[in-house]
Amino acid sequence: MLKWRIGIDLGGGDVDPQTIVKATCEAAATLAEDEFVFFGNIAPKNLPSTLSFVKTKEPILPSDHPLFSVKKKPDSSLVTGIRGVKEKKLDAFLSCGNTGALIVSASLELERLPHILRPALLTNFPSSSGRMVVLDVGGNLITKAEQLIQFAVLGASYARVRFGIALPRVALLNIGTESIKGTGELRLAWQKMMEAKGEAFSFVGNVEGRDVFTSGVDVLVTNGFAGNIFLKTAEGVSSFAFQYAEDRMPSLRERPEWNELKGVFNYESSQGALLSGVDGIVIKCHGNSSEKALFEAILGAHELYKNRIIDKMKETLIAGFSALSEKERL
Amino acid sequence: MLKWRIGIDLGGGDVDPQTIVKATCEAAATLAEDEFVFFGNIAPKNLPSTLSFVKTKEPILPSDHPLFSVKKKPDSSLVTGIRGVKEKKLDAFLSCGNTGALIVSASLELERLPHILRPALLTNFPSSSGRMVVLDVGGNLITKAEQLIQFAVLGASYARVRFGIALPRVALLNIGTESIKGTGELRLAWQKMMEAKGEAFSFVGNVEGRDVFTSGVDVLVTNGFAGNIFLKTAEGVSSFAFQYAEDRMPSLRERPEWNELKGVFNYESSQGALLSGVDGIVIKCHGNSSEKALFEAILGAHELYKNRIIDKMKETLIAGFSALSEKERL
Repeated sequence: MLKWRIGIDLGGGDVDPQTIVKATCEAAATLAEDEFVFFGNIAPKNLPSTLSFVKTKEPILPSDHPLFSVKKKPDSSLVTGIRGVKEKKLDAFLSCGNTGALIVSASLELERLPHILRPALLTNFPSSSGRMVVLDVGGNLITKAEQLIQFAVLGASYARVRFGIALPRVALLNIGTESIKGTGELRLAWQKMMEAKGEAFSFVGNVEGRDVFTSGVDVLVTNGFAGNIFLKTAEGVSSFAFQYAEDRMPSLRERPEWNELKGVFNYESSQGALLSGVDGIVIKCHGNSSEKALFEAILGAHELYKNRIIDKMKETLIAGFSALSEKERL
Repeated sequence: MLKWRIGIDLGGGDVDPQTIVKATCEAAATLAEDEFVFFGNIAPKNLPSTLSFVKTKEPILPSDHPLFSVKKKPDSSLVTGIRGVKEKKLDAFLSCGNTGALIVSASLELERLPHILRPALLTNFPSSSGRMVVLDVGGNLITKAEQLIQFAVLGASYARVRFGIALPRVALLNIGTESIKGTGELRLAWQKMMEAKGEAFSFVGNVEGRDVFTSGVDVLVTNGFAGNIFLKTAEGVSSFAFQYAEDRMPSLRERPEWNELKGVFNYESSQGALLSGVDGIVIKCHGNSSEKALFEAILGAHELYKNRIIDKMKETLIAGFSALSEKERL
């Protein structure tokens, strides 16, 4: 039987490699059609014979400079894994390592999806209508209006292909709903997205963090700095609020519904972030991911390659950008 | 009996003036030592005789340009109220109106507190150690490192005077804990705050939204854009999470402890945002504040002037900046 093959980075992150191996073993037990390849400079102990290991050189560390480290350490686990995706030896690569270096390496090695200048980290968060796609959550700290529009089409393409939403509702994360709110780039992006009539997405305007979870928005577009603040604050405050509730109502801990809903808001369920916009599946997990978070991220990656998400996104991206007026395109 | 006097803006916001009047009547019933003065272009109906009204001219609207509207409408309710604070005819002024115009007007009319270049909107949010002071939550969308340091001293001064925290723990809101994370200004601010040994505050470094609620941080420093995203996301997701829980466990609604803890996370309990850094008490409430939120904000303003918070902050600010090394000061 031919298998899908996922590469997993063991090097340079803050996560104990044994945690990564354990999560992978657990995933391997449920994914019979997948092959798992670890990349690292130290072979994990007691590696089951069903999992393979590729020895790589000096790892890229969390504190390393993204660009310099990628250039200086071409045989690190991170860069080797990305090359595996480029050469189609891997169907996906998953890393808990240096986010900047992962983006730089993927940007240098992998083709860009149609009309996309720079990749963006894409993840999803619970909302009243199910799941909301959010991008960028940390790739591009500062973005031009043109990039925000590209993120809109990219996120809409993902929402369509992954969740079957025919015309995804796209909003800009801002500090107010009026068109004059926020930075100059946000105001320009608002203007251009209002003008952009097409089948790529339905633009619903600016949305505030207060309303976004109940607003029916499918795709939340933002720069990487604000998106990262948004995502981590959302994770942090929901976790704190549930803890606060449990401290005052300890019996909640014994209610299965309570534990289930806590799981929905837990970052461990988010399946990591897809480095969207490149031709390949690259998944970034938190630098301090738990075993459960890694397990879920591997299951998520499996869904992506099993469903040929990148090929489908390519098609919808071409159609999406064609539907935008000429001036909105690159 | 001499009374404190609080001015309340009726003009130009999205809130129904009747809601503002109702909240004020409710507050007046509990605050015997306070006098309430409304400012607006239309007199409220059925105004109790214990409350007074000052007729002002064309109001500043939410969509107005902050600077131009303040210049063009010097007799609007907003600018007249700020002038009342300047002339010490008011002990505080509260508005749900145009945030930008309120900041511009206060910046033009009121003295700055020692060493503070620009005011910042300051509010607080629940945390595992009680309340955490957050600034700026919307005043200065983009900030220089020097301003972030001023916000740190300002926030620490407020935390000391208002909550009795001897040496407030200050953190920078960032997308990672390492010193190299975030924008250039954040990296510079990190460096300067690490070097700034003094009695003004204890700098604990960068903090992510995921950890800040349980990190023991007393003062969270950020620019107005990220701070606004942070605050509204925190409000939005906690409200959504509690709603999500109630939908799945309807019996929660009948538990008093549940309703009480929901209240703690509700923006209505936040008492609005203090425009900190100016010599006067100016309170900004949400443009769509509820009666309860306004009632709480009036009680909050009362606490501030009753406790002479601005005078006390002046003293601690002078001491705080003196304790910083020469180069960190203006």
